[in-house]
Order: sequence, then structure tokens, then C-alpha cells
Amino acid sequence: MSTGPGPEISRPAPGSATYLSGPVLVIGTGLLGASVGMGLSRLGIRVYLRDTSPTALRVAEDLGAGTAGPGAGDPAPELVVVATPPDVVAPTVAATLSEFDQAVVIDIASVKSSVLHELRDTPSLSSADLSRYVGTHPMAGRERSGPAAARGELFISAPWVVVPHEGSTPEAVRVARAVGADLGAAVTSMDAESHDRAVALVSHVPQVTASMLAARLLDAPGNALALAGNGLRDTTRIAASDPRLWIQILSHNAQQLVPILQGMQEDLARLVSTLQDPQAPGAALDLAQLMGEGNQGQARIPGKHGAPPESFATVGVIVDDAPGQIARLLTDIGEAGVNIEDLRMEHSAGYQVGLAEVGVLPGRRDELVAALEALDWKVVQ
Amino acid sequence: MSTGPGPEISRPAPGSATYLSGPVLVIGTGLLGASVGMGLSRLGIRVYLRDTSPTALRVAEDLGAGTAGPGAGDPAPELVVVATPPDVVAPTVAATLSEFDQAVVIDIASVKSSVLHELRDTPSLSSADLSRYVGTHPMAGRERSGPAAARGELFISAPWVVVPHEGSTPEAVRVARAVGADLGAAVTSMDAESHDRAVALVSHVPQVTASMLAARLLDAPGNALALAGNGLRDTTRIAASDPRLWIQILSHNAQQLVPILQGMQEDLARLVSTLQDPQAPGAALDLAQLMGEGNQGQARIPGKHGAPPESFATVGVIVDDAPGQIARLLTDIGEAGVNIEDLRMEHSAGYQVGLAEVGVLPGRRDELVAALEALDWKVVQ
Repeated sequence: MSTGPGPEISRPAPGSATYLSGPVLVIGTGLLGASVGMGLSRLGIRVYLRDTSPTALRVAEDLGAGTAGPGAGDPAPELVVVATPPDVVAPTVAATLSEFDQAVVIDIASVKSSVLHELRDTPSLSSADLSRYVGTHPMAGRERSGPAAARGELFISAPWVVVPHEGSTPEAVRVARAVGADLGAAVTSMDAESHDRAVALVSHVPQVTASMLAARLLDAPGNALALAGNGLRDTTRIAASDPRLWIQILSHNAQQLVPILQGMQEDLARLVSTLQDPQAPGAALDLAQLMGEGNQGQARIPGKHGAPPESFATVGVIVDDAPGQIARLLTDIGEAGVNIEDLRMEHSAGYQVGLAEVGVLPGRRDELVAALEALDWKVVQ
Repeated sequence: MSTGPGPEISRPAPGSATYLSGPVLVIGTGLLGASVGMGLSRLGIRVYLRDTSPTALRVAEDLGAGTAGPGAGDPAPELVVVATPPDVVAPTVAATLSEFDQAVVIDIASVKSSVLHELRDTPSLSSADLSRYVGTHPMAGRERSGPAAARGELFISAPWVVVPHEGSTPEAVRVARAVGADLGAAVTSMDAESHDRAVALVSHVPQVTASMLAARLLDAPGNALALAGNGLRDTTRIAASDPRLWIQILSHNAQQLVPILQGMQEDLARLVSTLQDPQAPGAALDLAQLMGEGNQGQARIPGKHGAPPESFATVGVIVDDAPGQIARLLTDIGEAGVNIEDLRMEHSAGYQVGLAEVGVLPGRRDELVAALEALDWKVVQ
């Protein structure tokens, strides 16, 4: 599993593939499949496309994702990327391994154990065929859908998890890593169970939690919603995700989700019981423990570029909400030679002024504040 | 309750108070109290400060929040702002109403019914005294604490909820609205119970939900956390909030929180039961309903400036992570004459390139895309 390009490699120059030679067949031209096709085509790799919907296929062709194929006489694919909806991934992988007996076949579904179990339970599939299969999970674009939202840059700097099984050949693993690396993704490896537990924690449980939280707002009065701040907006943003896709993801990863959700059930039951008698002995301690665990858990999430979460200093600047104001601020920051590590804007309903919160390396903070104040920016310390 | 400046008034020019004359006494010089003092002092209003901690008082004086007082012979305050920790707000308000028998007294605690009940249960307080009290809730700065984080601009464009009771005089309500208006906040009015239910929905339940979600990460493996994206970061950001403050807020608003949390308990129990047998009849429908309710609830949250949530179009632009790059992009957008309504940056660990997602009015989208492409920006449609 140590073969092939690792996450430490640098991104290839636009216009040429570094690791794949092609052709590549992409089956399923939704958002992710079409994006894979567009990204690889732009690198000069020949891409064949298949989709059960002739319309979706034509849209993907029009977008430059590749051409329908392979036809009779066309060279066989080096790699097949199965990008169908999750519930037909395993049968499609199995059929493809039989159809192209030299190709490496990967899928890009969000849950990996269920696909592997289903493939192992497919009687027609020999272990030699299965050795050419490697699971992958590019973690990008899950809040949009459809080929029209596709783009070749979708995977740039996104995690691309490669999930080999015990029987995967080193060559199959190499090719599975190569497609992620050529598309500019951050390639990493995990086994299927670790992957599924990881995405349950960092993606699936946050999704259902956001959905349950947003569902509380269904019958909220309008003047209550008018008090919404960035706290509510941030905690519920992903509740806007596509239900059709998520029903399949949640069903397929149910085994990993249940114990985590049961832990939340215990915490929630204890919280409700505490709040039913908030003056009882021990109540404050219970609340302190919940909040403290939240502090510690949040502090474990890595920041941008894998930096430790606390490693950026924040400089607040008051900006008028007029064209060019934020640009002028960021131009001034750029001319001060300070790199912006993070950026947030805070606003409130009805006012034409806002607060830009600029994250910078702590060592650069003081010089930035001095530079901005010299230019008459209102800096909030 | 229709007296005094309403939310439609424009922000006063810096350097002069429009609605208050002063002096104003601020009791409690934590983040919010010191910020009120700094904001009013800058407008030329005389501000007295009190704090049980001599050190905190001196820090607030050094920050320009006001001076210790009032001393013997000083003019009595027009307004007293009680900015103590939530659990001593009511006795402090009661004592202050007795001490200054002409002053309007407001508090700025996050929960309003419990303060009012406690005041009504104070035998020494006459209804004439109580008529000079009005509750308020400036919704700003809750993620930081301490006077060192204070700043006069803290309230600019933030909601400032004024919560009169049945006995509040029109003059007391006017003064309570005036302080918010002079500090640049978006002043609005609600009764205590509506306010407490509103903040339970838009602030307190999101807080405990984020804390419970983040607590799941306590024993997550490091390679799982490395897969964290903006979804996890956004849903858990407020889990970093100060436990000491939140224990008091949650205790005081327990009555409003319990029914909302019980609704979540029901949803969570149904979800766990569904996921324990995800292939059972009706399971997919259950998941669809949860996700659909999340979609609808999220869609009800107003956007920036009170605009409908769906009213901005997004343009994605690939930017290198170098000083001045984002500034250059935003300068180009400003020169195209298009106002930026929202801005997000997407990143991933280990890569020096990112995606800037720029929200603009839908009618301006196409011209912005054309302008950026003409300048060789990589625009993602």
C-alpha cells in the first residue's frame, strides 16, 4: 500500500497528466463523474463516458467531460471510474470488472464497507477480478448535484481517500492514487472500516445533526428567525444538502452511525433531565461537563492546511458595505505583505456596515494592525 | 412601545450621541459592559463604571470605557446598564433602582423572563421603581469574554432586542432603545417570553447541539479528523464558547429549552431506530422526511441584511494562496462595480490553492463572470 504517489507530492502543472496514461471510462455523469471527466480531459487524457440517461450523457459531453464510449475498435480503458448513485455501485463495479478484464476499477461512493461486502458476496466475481478493484472517496462537492454543477477543479486540494482491500494489487492501488493525484486532490489511504467510521464522525453525523437542528425552525415565528446570527447559519448550512443522495449514504453507513448517535442520545437525555430541574445539586456540573467536552472536541479539528486549530490570530476591521470596500481592505493587506489565512464577514439584517475578520499567522498580526491603522482602517482588537 | 427610535433609523455619525445625554453608569466591566462604556464614551457621553473586581475596573478604565463612579457630587446617571454575570442581574437591578430613584435601569442578560420574575418577586421593589426597568439583549460577542476583548464597535449592526414589561414607562423604553441606537445596533422589541423562546431556537439549542456534536470527536482517531471539511468546522465552531457563561444561560432558559430538545430527542430516537434496520419498509421515507424538514427549516433562515436566503448567486474563483491574491480578486470585482454580498474560502490540508466563493445579487452574476474571465481568473460555474 505504500506504492504510488503519496500525499506529499506536489500538484501537477495544468495541461498534462503526471500519473495516468488512459483511456479512462467514467460510468455515471452526475456532478462527481462529470467533474472527473472534465478534469482528466483537460489533462489530455482520453475519457469515455457512459450514463443510463442519454440526456445526462449529452450534457456531460457538452461540458467537455469526454465522449460516449468506448466503441468497437477503441482502445480498452486503463481505468474505470464508477460514479453511479450509491445503491447501484456494487453491481456496476462487478459488471465492469468482467467486461474489461485488464482495467483497474474504482468507485467514488461515500461509504466503502457496504460496497466491498456486496462485491465479496457476488458469486460471479473471481478473486482475480476483485484484485483489480480499489475503493476511493473524493470528499468534494456534496452540497451540489447534477452535471451542470460539474467542474474539473472540483477536487483541487480536497481529500481523496483511497481504500484498498486485502486482495487489491499494488498496481490497482497505484492507479487509484494516480487519478486523485492527477486531479490535484490530497490523496490518503485508509481501510474500509476506518474510513466509514471517520466519515460517520466528520461528515454523516454532522449532516443529520444539522438537519435535526434546522427542522426545529419549521414553525419558528418570523421575528425569532430575524435574530439569527452566524451561529445558527453555520450550524445549519449543510441542512440544505440533497435528501436523495443522503438517504443512500445514511442507509449504507448505518452500522457506523448508530453507536455515535446513541452516544448523542445519552448526552441529550442527560441534558433534558438536567434542564428539567436546573437548580438541583449537580446540575451546573452536568452542564459544565457537556460544554467542556464540546470545547475539547472542537479544539481537535485541524485548521486550514492542516495547521493546528488555534494557530491563526484574528484582526477585525470595520468595513462599509459598498462595492470595492472589502477589495480595498484586502489590497491593503496584500500590499502589507501579509498572507490571509482565513476570512469571515459578520453582518446583521438592515445595516450597511460589517466586520471583516481576517485570520493571519500570529507573528504577522501586530505589523498588520499597524499597517491598517496607518491607512485609517478601523481595526477592532 | 412605539416611542423612541425604531430599527429604521440610520446610524449616528461617529463622535456624537444622538439619543442619549448621559451620564450612564455601567455595572460590570466584562466584555459587554466594557464595550458599552467604550462605545458611549467615544460618542462624548460621560460613563461611570463599577465592578466588584478592582482589577477588571482598572482594565476597563485603561481601555477608555469610562471612570469609576459616580462619586459624591457627581451628577446622577440618566441610565444604568447592568452588565453583571446572569446570576446576579436581578438583585443588582433591584438595588440600582432603589439607589438611583430617577434613572432608567436596563440589563443586558441573554435570558429575560427569569430576570423579570425575580424582580417581581422582590418585596422591597415598588411597582413605581419597577416601571423604570426595561430588559435588553444585545446579541453580540458571545464567543469571546473579558474586558480585554471589549471594543466600542461590538454592537454595530448586531441585533439589540428591547424587552419592556407591562409596567415599563414609555420614557424607560425610549432610553433603552436609545442606547442600542447610539451604539449602532439594530434595535427591535419583543416580550420576554417571545424573546426567550426565540433565543432558545436561534442560539441556545444550536449551542448545545454544537457542543454535543463536538463531544463526539473526543476520541476520534487523528486520521479521521484529517478528513474534516467546512461542514464539520461550521457545525462545531460555536462549541468553542465559554462554558461558565453558558451554564448560566442554559439554566435560566431551561423552561424554553426543554420542549425544543424533547423534539430533537424524538427525531433522534426515530433516526436511530430507522438506521438499526435501514432496509425495512418505510426506512427510506423516514430518512427522506428528516432531510426534507432540515431543508425547509434551513431555507427559513434570513440572509444578510434580512434578504431572503436564496437571493444571492455564487461565483467560485480558483485563487493561489499567496499574499495579495484574494485582494487582487476582490479589487477586480470592485472595479467591475459588483457588490460582494457574501464571501467564503474553501481550503484543504496541505495544498496552497483555494476556492473563493463570492455571493452576489443574481442579476449581477453573469456580468461578473464575464469581467473575471476577461481578466484571466479561473471561474468555476
